[in-house]
Amino acid sequence: TMLKKVLLGSLGAVLVLTAGILLGHFGIQRGSTTPDWHLSHDRSLVPMCLSRELTKVPHMATSPGDEKTVQYMLKRWQDPDTGLDQAWREEYKVYLSFPDPNTPNKVTVGDPSDAVLYTAREKEKAYSSDQEDPEVVQPYAAYAPAGHPKGRLVYANQGKPSDYFLLNQTLDLTGTIAITRYGGEGRAGKAINAAPYGVIGVLVYTDPWDINDGKMSDNNETYPYSWYMPPSGVERGSFNTHYGDMLTPYLAAKDDTYRIPEKNITGIPPIPTQPIGFEDAYALICDVKLDIYNREELKNSANVMGVIRGSVEPDRYVIYGNHRDSWVHGAIDPSSGTSVMLEVTRVLGRMVKQGKWRPRRSIIFGSWGAEEFGLIGSTEYTEVNNLNQSNVIYKIPVYIISNATLRASGSPSAQSVILKASKQVKTPGSDSTSVYDNWIRYFNRTSPAYGVIPNVGFLTGAGSDYAAFIHFLGITSMDISYTYDRTKTRARIYPAYHTAYDTFDYASKFIDPGFTSHQTVARTAGNVLMRLADSLLLPFNCSDYAETLEGYLNKAMELNTVLEYPVPAPISEPLQNAVRNFRSAATRLDQLVRDSDLANETPLKVRRINDQLMLLDRAFLDPGAFPDRYGFRHVIWASSKAGQATFPGLADAYTRARSTGLDSDWKEAHRQLSILIQAIQGAAHTLGDAI
Amino acid sequence: TMLKKVLLGSLGAVLVLTAGILLGHFGIQRGSTTPDWHLSHDRSLVPMCLSRELTKVPHMATSPGDEKTVQYMLKRWQDPDTGLDQAWREEYKVYLSFPDPNTPNKVTVGDPSDAVLYTAREKEKAYSSDQEDPEVVQPYAAYAPAGHPKGRLVYANQGKPSDYFLLNQTLDLTGTIAITRYGGEGRAGKAINAAPYGVIGVLVYTDPWDINDGKMSDNNETYPYSWYMPPSGVERGSFNTHYGDMLTPYLAAKDDTYRIPEKNITGIPPIPTQPIGFEDAYALICDVKLDIYNREELKNSANVMGVIRGSVEPDRYVIYGNHRDSWVHGAIDPSSGTSVMLEVTRVLGRMVKQGKWRPRRSIIFGSWGAEEFGLIGSTEYTEVNNLNQSNVIYKIPVYIISNATLRASGSPSAQSVILKASKQVKTPGSDSTSVYDNWIRYFNRTSPAYGVIPNVGFLTGAGSDYAAFIHFLGITSMDISYTYDRTKTRARIYPAYHTAYDTFDYASKFIDPGFTSHQTVARTAGNVLMRLADSLLLPFNCSDYAETLEGYLNKAMELNTVLEYPVPAPISEPLQNAVRNFRSAATRLDQLVRDSDLANETPLKVRRINDQLMLLDRAFLDPGAFPDRYGFRHVIWASSKAGQATFPGLADAYTRARSTGLDSDWKEAHRQLSILIQAIQGAAHTLGDAI
Repeated sequence: TMLKKVLLGSLGAVLVLTAGILLGHFGIQRGSTTPDWHLSHDRSLVPMCLSRELTKVPHMATSPGDEKTVQYMLKRWQDPDTGLDQAWREEYKVYLSFPDPNTPNKVTVGDPSDAVLYTAREKEKAYSSDQEDPEVVQPYAAYAPAGHPKGRLVYANQGKPSDYFLLNQTLDLTGTIAITRYGGEGRAGKAINAAPYGVIGVLVYTDPWDINDGKMSDNNETYPYSWYMPPSGVERGSFNTHYGDMLTPYLAAKDDTYRIPEKNITGIPPIPTQPIGFEDAYALICDVKLDIYNREELKNSANVMGVIRGSVEPDRYVIYGNHRDSWVHGAIDPSSGTSVMLEVTRVLGRMVKQGKWRPRRSIIFGSWGAEEFGLIGSTEYTEVNNLNQSNVIYKIPVYIISNATLRASGSPSAQSVILKASKQVKTPGSDSTSVYDNWIRYFNRTSPAYGVIPNVGFLTGAGSDYAAFIHFLGITSMDISYTYDRTKTRARIYPAYHTAYDTFDYASKFIDPGFTSHQTVARTAGNVLMRLADSLLLPFNCSDYAETLEGYLNKAMELNTVLEYPVPAPISEPLQNAVRNFRSAATRLDQLVRDSDLANETPLKVRRINDQLMLLDRAFLDPGAFPDRYGFRHVIWASSKAGQATFPGLADAYTRARSTGLDSDWKEAHRQLSILIQAIQGAAHTLGDAI
Repeated sequence: TMLKKVLLGSLGAVLVLTAGILLGHFGIQRGSTTPDWHLSHDRSLVPMCLSRELTKVPHMATSPGDEKTVQYMLKRWQDPDTGLDQAWREEYKVYLSFPDPNTPNKVTVGDPSDAVLYTAREKEKAYSSDQEDPEVVQPYAAYAPAGHPKGRLVYANQGKPSDYFLLNQTLDLTGTIAITRYGGEGRAGKAINAAPYGVIGVLVYTDPWDINDGKMSDNNETYPYSWYMPPSGVERGSFNTHYGDMLTPYLAAKDDTYRIPEKNITGIPPIPTQPIGFEDAYALICDVKLDIYNREELKNSANVMGVIRGSVEPDRYVIYGNHRDSWVHGAIDPSSGTSVMLEVTRVLGRMVKQGKWRPRRSIIFGSWGAEEFGLIGSTEYTEVNNLNQSNVIYKIPVYIISNATLRASGSPSAQSVILKASKQVKTPGSDSTSVYDNWIRYFNRTSPAYGVIPNVGFLTGAGSDYAAFIHFLGITSMDISYTYDRTKTRARIYPAYHTAYDTFDYASKFIDPGFTSHQTVARTAGNVLMRLADSLLLPFNCSDYAETLEGYLNKAMELNTVLEYPVPAPISEPLQNAVRNFRSAATRLDQLVRDSDLANETPLKVRRINDQLMLLDRAFLDPGAFPDRYGFRHVIWASSKAGQATFPGLADAYTRARSTGLDSDWKEAHRQLSILIQAIQGAAHTLGDAI
């Protein structure tokens, strides 16, 4: 479970979201060779107030601001001219964490002076230009327990297991309070790793080295004078390692649903934990006292759902979602994504309302609540609705920062559709350079099949709302964002991330002036969405999946994970065979598609191929693969401690076995290998000919 | 786990199989109102030698006899004139249990005389008329451990938990050997329940009261003079509670597959256990010594597979299977079913080879190996092949005894197709009475929707090869057999069941002279199969499923299982709502079908409804529902200790909570209720309109 957060931490950088104003059309050129189905859209503009509308109230889950945003979205999705076929809200009641509004969390320094160094919410207020409702009470470290530890402060780097292990070699950590910096380890992990050493409290700060390229004065260098985080900025977050509502694992959180006892919750900090700004972090010395008054409450939260009914295959769903709740105002995270989604729905909705267009497949739009507490809304959606029946993909458009390039992650079979769309959209401020051109310049990789191409990453963690879809349900997913120029900054993530400074002012001045990057993302995401919803054949490429498996296999061979077992047979052979079988099945299916005149084939033959492509990711699920890891069943995409681009269960089990030498650990490695072979063979079978 | 065997024991009666000679056609009358698709078959006869061919060698899994049977089946399924499109064998290597061929298991009585009362295999030989290879070494209690306990014999009735509990009130069971009779409790359970009381060994015998209507002399009363079991008959069986290969849970048992350590196997007898005939049981007194030399081995076994390719929907599979291995000769169990399946494939294969017919959907035939050791072959089939993609139903034709009526079990949605087929087939020896007419007379129930109809039971245990399909994969399944007249005998099952007397001679003289019942079953099973494979709309009735859920709900209300929780809300309401939603969705789907001219609808619209019907049982799977029960995920059909026709997880949890009063047990009852509600709502959603 800790493992997940490690990845979450490192993935966080590409998964967070933005707010903005959109220029309408999706940038598919008329007269290109693209088929008709994605040319039939309009090119109108959105009102410039969109982003401000979304961000003028703080919209933490369950806050009055969130409710206003819900109403705003419903109004737009039910608009008679530009709305969807249908839109509604879906309520659930979930376990959230809040500070005490009357007794703010405190960090006190020195003994016996008890000078209050830090009180939550006080510092940021002065700088935050847009805080129109500063009295909304938000947690800083959601799910960190209340408590009042007092002890000597020790610096524990990133709070990784190895950090505490090494520190403990020279220093007795019993009774200490650890101060750690963000990054390298998931939020909750910093406290979970500390507790076994007797640490009694944890502080977390955002190091200016990691986020501000070292800039740390508030004189010209930081917001409101630049995009860098002011010294007072506090990065909030949910300090749990599971995803979904923690009291109703795998169950929809309705009023009457069974809830596990709170004491049975796992994966949350066992000791009081509080994030602080770096100005406070650097002032801390010696003894520190934490006064944490967090408490948990059952609260209602809601998803806002909207649909466009498919004309030919209404029982195949393309799901497009973004979360709605934020820490404070959340102009970037999540409102950039929300405004992109609203623009996409407005353009598509108008075409539908005018009777000009209706997609082949149904499209479901989801505005998820309570993502910031642990992907709760999207996970509830998968638990309430029976998604086993028929569905295609989940797509979340996420967006970060202008002036650079698209970033995307997804199942390998989804790589090609993203690349195709990116060729049809121009990069911001250019009439000739495509998103693809820019992307390949900033962030590329060498593919055995295609040579140098833009890099599409993998969805290996539970970093955002795709988690329940890809990891638990095996629904082919992708994640699209726009990012900043990493040659010019080392920032771990955009500096205002999860702070009160993530405002409309910040976004419009420093992130995306003119909102041209928002427009680019809307065009790209809209292009991808229309291809998924409208193409006769699903635009999934199974040979690209084969390439990924071959890459994983090569890495596994390199790491020896399939060669060195202390078991009788040379067992790398079966895994190589499985990957070879998968490649053959993919090649045959590709060939079948190339040799077919699909437009003139029987609908059932086309459907059969589409089902094979749709179910490919599902074939990699194994409910018994990771019994100790909540919500992870996909044997290719589960995150791995090894952090290598290889089979995660196998790599982790192998690493462990090699380090302990225990027979039982070698057995688990062998079990993981068998699970993997069976999943790959099953996936090859899915792609294979029907009888 | 014990629970499963309880049900298995009681279901055993309807699940065992027969051998015989078939008269070819399936009894669908020309000129009836049935559609063309199941009239196009021939009416030829099978050679009378079929059953003898199948039963002349003992075909325990892995024996030379089994290999001969494999070859025989392959030859028939690859026959150029009457074979299938394709047939092949699939090997797996599994964990089986055998006695020591050199040191037969012994039961010795009296001290110090040590007179051997019983040696396995010696007694039956004299009576068995067909044992052409008596030296094939078979286990009697597969997976019972080796050991040499010696102790006082105590009679423990059926070896149920309550039997040992009560016995222990008056008698110290430490160091005793329990003698129990078959029935009331699964085989392994008799020993598993005993061990905690200090019992050191278990004998199991077949009581003539349960199987022979009290007849127990060998003078005219028993075989070879009647169908009753001779005093020497020993009922063999697999003494494990899991299904599938025990060393490779949820994984295909290939050479290189990871195998769990033998010590981690659960659900097998912890103490030496041996079945004996009743002549020995009644002679036993005082002290007894068991010498059990069983040992486990990894052995190859095989499924024989054959397919007929579908013409329109080749990627939808109708699976029809029967196991092939037996205890000794197995003329009834399993060769009756095998010969029925061979006759069905011969008739259909000829039509296919002659180009006269090809089903709409693909048909897969499976001759499973190693069923008798724990449903191993069929379970391996599901583990090797990726059945998530697309498939329809699993159907096992099983058959018992003539002169009475059909017995069938299945998912409620499959009831109607069985009843329809049964109306089109005549009962043996009659030109006017249909199977349906006879069935309703012998074994009926009152349905709220239809009034008095033949009783189709539920697949609530792991009694035969449907287990992995329905319980683990949620594939709609059914099970068809023919049974004897229960007004004339109380026999728990046909008396030669699992003994050496289950021979061609026995079957042809006492079970089905003339093999007319075999013919009837072949006609009925063939009729059902053709409807499933050929009909435009799958012949599944979702409103019948609603009726079952309503019945379950009423029973739950009657038992108070949804009313009495010590939790705040009146939580029976959500369950009632869920069942109501399911009923509404079923009614709407039925109406949609009635209002549609399906033959003129688009193929994708028909496919959509077929997918809804196909996936209905799948929607009831919850992998977290029964974490301690191997292979059970279907929340409606999992077996229940309560033995009531109601929701199994809820009933068991409720019963337990009411008996212990523990808060944690009430919580589990509430959790089961939430799981159930979510599954039923999900199933209703599956039946509902696409967006």
